[in-house]
Amino acid sequence: MDDVFAIEGGHVLTPEFDVIEANVLVDREAGEVIEVGPDVTAEETLDATDSLVMPGLVNAHTHVAMTLLRGYADDKPLDAWLQEDIWPVEAELTPEDIRVGTELGLVEFIKNGITGFADSYFEVGEIAAATEQSGLRANLCHAFISVGKDNEGARADAQEGLDIAREFDGAADGRITTALMPHSLTTVETEYLEEFIPQAREAGVPLHFHANETQNEVDPLVDDHGVRPLEYADDLGMLTDQDFLAHCVHVDETEIELLAETGASVIHCPASNMKLASGIAPIQEMLDTGVNVGLGTDGAASNNDLDLFDEIRDAAMIGKLARGDARDVAAESAVRMATEGSAEAIGLPVGQIEAGGTADIAVVDFDAPHLTPVHDFVSHLAYAVRGSDVRHTVCDGEILMADGEVQTLDEAAVKQRASEAAEALVDRAE
Amino acid sequence: MDDVFAIEGGHVLTPEFDVIEANVLVDREAGEVIEVGPDVTAEETLDATDSLVMPGLVNAHTHVAMTLLRGYADDKPLDAWLQEDIWPVEAELTPEDIRVGTELGLVEFIKNGITGFADSYFEVGEIAAATEQSGLRANLCHAFISVGKDNEGARADAQEGLDIAREFDGAADGRITTALMPHSLTTVETEYLEEFIPQAREAGVPLHFHANETQNEVDPLVDDHGVRPLEYADDLGMLTDQDFLAHCVHVDETEIELLAETGASVIHCPASNMKLASGIAPIQEMLDTGVNVGLGTDGAASNNDLDLFDEIRDAAMIGKLARGDARDVAAESAVRMATEGSAEAIGLPVGQIEAGGTADIAVVDFDAPHLTPVHDFVSHLAYAVRGSDVRHTVCDGEILMADGEVQTLDEAAVKQRASEAAEALVDRAE
Ligand SMILES: [Zn+2]
Ligand SMILES: [Zn+2]
Repeated sequence: MDDVFAIEGGHVLTPEFDVIEANVLVDREAGEVIEVGPDVTAEETLDATDSLVMPGLVNAHTHVAMTLLRGYADDKPLDAWLQEDIWPVEAELTPEDIRVGTELGLVEFIKNGITGFADSYFEVGEIAAATEQSGLRANLCHAFISVGKDNEGARADAQEGLDIAREFDGAADGRITTALMPHSLTTVETEYLEEFIPQAREAGVPLHFHANETQNEVDPLVDDHGVRPLEYADDLGMLTDQDFLAHCVHVDETEIELLAETGASVIHCPASNMKLASGIAPIQEMLDTGVNVGLGTDGAASNNDLDLFDEIRDAAMIGKLARGDARDVAAESAVRMATEGSAEAIGLPVGQIEAGGTADIAVVDFDAPHLTPVHDFVSHLAYAVRGSDVRHTVCDGEILMADGEVQTLDEAAVKQRASEAAEALVDRAE
Repeated sequence: MDDVFAIEGGHVLTPEFDVIEANVLVDREAGEVIEVGPDVTAEETLDATDSLVMPGLVNAHTHVAMTLLRGYADDKPLDAWLQEDIWPVEAELTPEDIRVGTELGLVEFIKNGITGFADSYFEVGEIAAATEQSGLRANLCHAFISVGKDNEGARADAQEGLDIAREFDGAADGRITTALMPHSLTTVETEYLEEFIPQAREAGVPLHFHANETQNEVDPLVDDHGVRPLEYADDLGMLTDQDFLAHCVHVDETEIELLAETGASVIHCPASNMKLASGIAPIQEMLDTGVNVGLGTDGAASNNDLDLFDEIRDAAMIGKLARGDARDVAAESAVRMATEGSAEAIGLPVGQIEAGGTADIAVVDFDAPHLTPVHDFVSHLAYAVRGSDVRHTVCDGEILMADGEVQTLDEAAVKQRASEAAEALVDRAE
């Protein structure tokens, strides 16, 4: 294996969102782009004819092992779906299930040009091991809950979240970072937030939590505390420029301003918000107010795939429905959310196709009927490209997929094992 | 070429939406399924291992030649988008542009498992010729407009619509039928509707028109006529069980009941309605009231692709947002809209994978990470399948695509010619 390789013959999406014709020389060891230019070349090449070389996508909120539950239950409201379908099956998940479910999701990520992600689930050791093997970057955490537990159980769960955050921070040669995740503002009681958040700050890990996903989640909090949920979170020191909040569908102006002032990021999950009928997050208002917004698929069970190009399209599409204005969440905004917005939110480097930039790269094949003609590459990225148009995926300078073939995981074996695990899981649960 | 071929080794979606393991024997000449069963076979086969054999999708409202304008202008409200971007370029379209734009769209249809469509545009002769060559079924029409024209011009345009409807009805061995299309209730004045609709009835062709797409289209009509647009249309005899109305985003309860009573169909175009910020059509109410609903992509310029699996997903997704109920527009409803709902709406036979059924068939490959595991085939069709998962497409007993290779049009040549035509078109317009 050479120290360098060149991505040749394509177009390049620059950090300024210009599109130029150029080759890209990548340094494997440094995980960096060495040079972008018409004449750079190397012995080892990835062909990019008729393709666009762009930053890898970053899936900033997911529960990747939930691939095993893809399509298991649909068309139900959030509470019934969780209580009747998802939780009973999740209770039966073994560490081996988590491992293979994660591997399946990571194969899907790589095929769809995703180079980094933020995950929250349990059995994080399995998720970290699969991530290390895959070559992807991730911010991982164990989601803890106090509601429905005695004090001892609640503290033990939170402690596990903290221990995991400490243990895996910097794993996989630094490709893995961590967060502390209080599951949400309504499922973790105040005393546990007060006890554990300062410890996360000491450990230097950010907070990742679900916030204001449904109106049902907002109302009791307003009743109990007399303030909006994000004011409550801010009082507890949960909003800093390191922290990232999934959903934020039901936020008011004050809360949007709080997000902008504190620098906390929002992870928009439009597909999940539609499928569970949660509503439309006010993304254009957030962008206009200066909030950093990333994109996430959420788990496969509420999506039902892990193709972030769907979320880019969804964000642009329902962004226009939100206020009835077709100018809202324009193509470039949506694509930037999926790349730099997500990466900044979860604290990962963002791919930059320029000398010295991080070599986290997706190469998208535009030689397809649904991408012909090309009046505007960025328009196609938002409205017409599918994950299946990705040819090559590079992360940290390593080729994770070449010509559609995943290099770091055995796609066929993973599909086979995941199918068997899912079948056995449902048999146990039903 | 044999008289029969077998689609072997897959699962079959039956008319009852059950999924069984079976082979499918097809009679080329009759365009029919001869037999469905575990042991049927033939010398010539299409492999369906790990795949689902289902009815071909029907795209019930499109302007297929608009592929040349794909991504040309985005993120603008309907009126500005039409006046500033689309109409000036459309004015420059030559018959050759229409031909190649249509061929490009038809290649995309075939690749996405679409076997029938309803189109309205101009230069219908070119669209019919491309359709005949492609092997697809279609209902075609010339959209006429009176607003902004003098009486002579308006009558000439309507007459052309009527002539086209008469000329091409039954073309391509009966695969082509036609409609009369008054463009919309606001762009064609009452006198022309009164004059030409009875002639369409005499000719035995249905009406296809845009209705209630935006609130801007509803308000002036209510002001002028004192009734809701669909009451006005009904008074003019424009609602029968042959007729189909695109959009119907802004309809009230009375109008939904009128649709149900008359049997007129609605063609839901969720992507176009989102992208142009038109709103969300009340689809679940329509279904509950007994309205037949089909699905359409609308033109590629407001979508921006022609993948009806996107519309299935969009319909299910925004169907839940409409009333905040995750049970609305469930997976099976959405898939049925794209198959039998669309086919019935536009008067084409619907594919039926049973003995004696019409051999309009899509074979979808489920051996993919994003479709693993398979708890429920229909859930995947709604929420996870992409057009690129279609392996084989059959229409009227002919194989239009085998293993991803389009048989009736030259995909590479069409892409090349379409790219060149689009570039020249924009040069002329700008
Ligand atoms: Zn989540
Ligand atoms: Zn239309």
